[in-house]
Amino acid sequence: MRDSDTKRDAYAEAGVDIDAGQDAVRLMGDAVRSTWDKNVLGRYGAFAGLYAYSASEHGDVIAVTIDGVGTKLKVAVMSGTYSSVGMDIVNHCTDDLLVQRAGPLLFADYFASSSLTPEVVAEAVGGMAEACRVVGASLIGGETAEMPGVYCEGEIDLVGCMVGVAKREEIEDVPPVAPGDVLIGIGSSGLHTNGYSLARHLLFTKAGMDVGTEVPELGCRVGEALLEPHLEYLTLLGPHLGDKRIHGLAHITGGGLFDNVRRVLPEGCAAHIDKSTWEPLPIFRLLQSIGELSDDEAYRALNMGVGMVLVVDPAAADELLAGLGEGEAAVTLIGEVRSGETGVVLS
Amino acid sequence: MRDSDTKRDAYAEAGVDIDAGQDAVRLMGDAVRSTWDKNVLGRYGAFAGLYAYSASEHGDVIAVTIDGVGTKLKVAVMSGTYSSVGMDIVNHCTDDLLVQRAGPLLFADYFASSSLTPEVVAEAVGGMAEACRVVGASLIGGETAEMPGVYCEGEIDLVGCMVGVAKREEIEDVPPVAPGDVLIGIGSSGLHTNGYSLARHLLFTKAGMDVGTEVPELGCRVGEALLEPHLEYLTLLGPHLGDKRIHGLAHITGGGLFDNVRRVLPEGCAAHIDKSTWEPLPIFRLLQSIGELSDDEAYRALNMGVGMVLVVDPAAADELLAGLGEGEAAVTLIGEVRSGETGVVLS
Repeated sequence: MRDSDTKRDAYAEAGVDIDAGQDAVRLMGDAVRSTWDKNVLGRYGAFAGLYAYSASEHGDVIAVTIDGVGTKLKVAVMSGTYSSVGMDIVNHCTDDLLVQRAGPLLFADYFASSSLTPEVVAEAVGGMAEACRVVGASLIGGETAEMPGVYCEGEIDLVGCMVGVAKREEIEDVPPVAPGDVLIGIGSSGLHTNGYSLARHLLFTKAGMDVGTEVPELGCRVGEALLEPHLEYLTLLGPHLGDKRIHGLAHITGGGLFDNVRRVLPEGCAAHIDKSTWEPLPIFRLLQSIGELSDDEAYRALNMGVGMVLVVDPAAADELLAGLGEGEAAVTLIGEVRSGETGVVLS
Repeated sequence: MRDSDTKRDAYAEAGVDIDAGQDAVRLMGDAVRSTWDKNVLGRYGAFAGLYAYSASEHGDVIAVTIDGVGTKLKVAVMSGTYSSVGMDIVNHCTDDLLVQRAGPLLFADYFASSSLTPEVVAEAVGGMAEACRVVGASLIGGETAEMPGVYCEGEIDLVGCMVGVAKREEIEDVPPVAPGDVLIGIGSSGLHTNGYSLARHLLFTKAGMDVGTEVPELGCRVGEALLEPHLEYLTLLGPHLGDKRIHGLAHITGGGLFDNVRRVLPEGCAAHIDKSTWEPLPIFRLLQSIGELSDDEAYRALNMGVGMVLVVDPAAADELLAGLGEGEAAVTLIGEVRSGETGVVLS
């Protein structure tokens, strides 16, 4: 639940301190847990918080997640395009709820800037509203703040909080991830909402491009590739949330496959991912090339083309691969779980 | 629900554009409402969104509010004190839910900065956790973001989203505010979380003070007076939420008594407030004096010592005044509702 949108390694060069983010999360753990009553079901560090609201029928569980768009917003400002970041924040939150097997119910946003341009706010909220309609969330709260002297001139921040509901019978008695399980990766549309401090550093500072630069291998302008909206996986995976052969789901955000798949692994389970099983989108190869990033650096800072990972019972793999593969996203068997030191091994 | 943390008049000098905020709220109205399903009970512009979650027992209603601390955060940064702003955001959200007759259930926070200092984040979250324990909210979601180039060096933003629950029988069939009703004001502890762009401009730029300046009439340093935490009124008013002789509640935030009491007035109702019925705290007199603010300017930008207003059946006034007056906050009869042009008349 408490998450830190900072990444390591190649990030130091781009001015972001991953360790500070992780330290902050650790330092506040006791204080956060001191507020929990017996109805809090989630564990500290999960993708979304879960709460068994005792007055609800059928043991429904309320799920809450909060997130920001991060420095992808700077690309939106450079491009003068705000609808896509509105969609980003809704879809990011939707996917955080999804991995907790919860579906969206309500959404609230916070839009802040050094100075407000009504049309910009309206365009961003328009993007949110469009994404909310797709996933079935009612946008019932919002705040717009003008804070000169806090935000750099012309910059914005955009935060979303989503409330969802999970069926208790769907989240209980799911077998834990175990050796023998296999990993199914579902394709992303681009960077989604993570890795932008690094990407901006590489593309704009190091390579001297701007958002209007046409790059042949991208087939579009740099700004367009970077602003491709975060995909929501609810439409694809929603019908499968009750399938207990899916032992775990990981939304690939800051920290990439390494940190996010790690979050669903029990002690003694190593996820072995074979990176030759999918081809990263051109934007990832471009970033890796400009930054001369090692695979270890690239796969920690970026999703590298995988936006969601399912850890599933091997007996269910073929059926799930076939069923999910009928959608638009690439669905690939990318690895397996073995006994070993807890963590992700990429080869 | 969609709110704008900008104020008018004296604010132009401090660099904040009230009209832009209001325009933004209007422009996005259709998009926001396009996401609503039949369970959304609130109206656009209410203090918090209300949602009748159909699977819940007893017709319980989910309430959601989101807000930021605003430029009070700059005072926290100047003072190197972060616990109080953590309390501020929780209490602000609590009071927004309260005026919708909802009690807190869950809280999620977003902390962003140009660069993260773990101890600062932990201190702010510690303040939130303390306030959450008081009002009974479980802090189950959070995000920490480091965004160099978006936030000015050393500056932070702090956003909170609170999910609460109202009893349907307590929010239904409340008689509307009507001529003859009286207004009960409940004292604030200071500026709460609004008016800080103006206050900083007057105290630090115009008067040349800093947070350490001792001001005799304040009885403390300027920074201490400014960082006094936002009061939560749940402890005082929670037991009265089922009292339908309370026809409306207004949380006095940006826009002061004028804009916020206005939000609970039906057409044709004018709230006449007699400002001689209470004495504003010294900080308000100091700001008004430095800024040579007219009463109209001061009472629009600042709460002037009233943090919450109840609009009540005149027959219940004495009983409520006596009962509520046993708490620590000042509780005063400050005005009445008359037939007239919809709005607030201060005399």
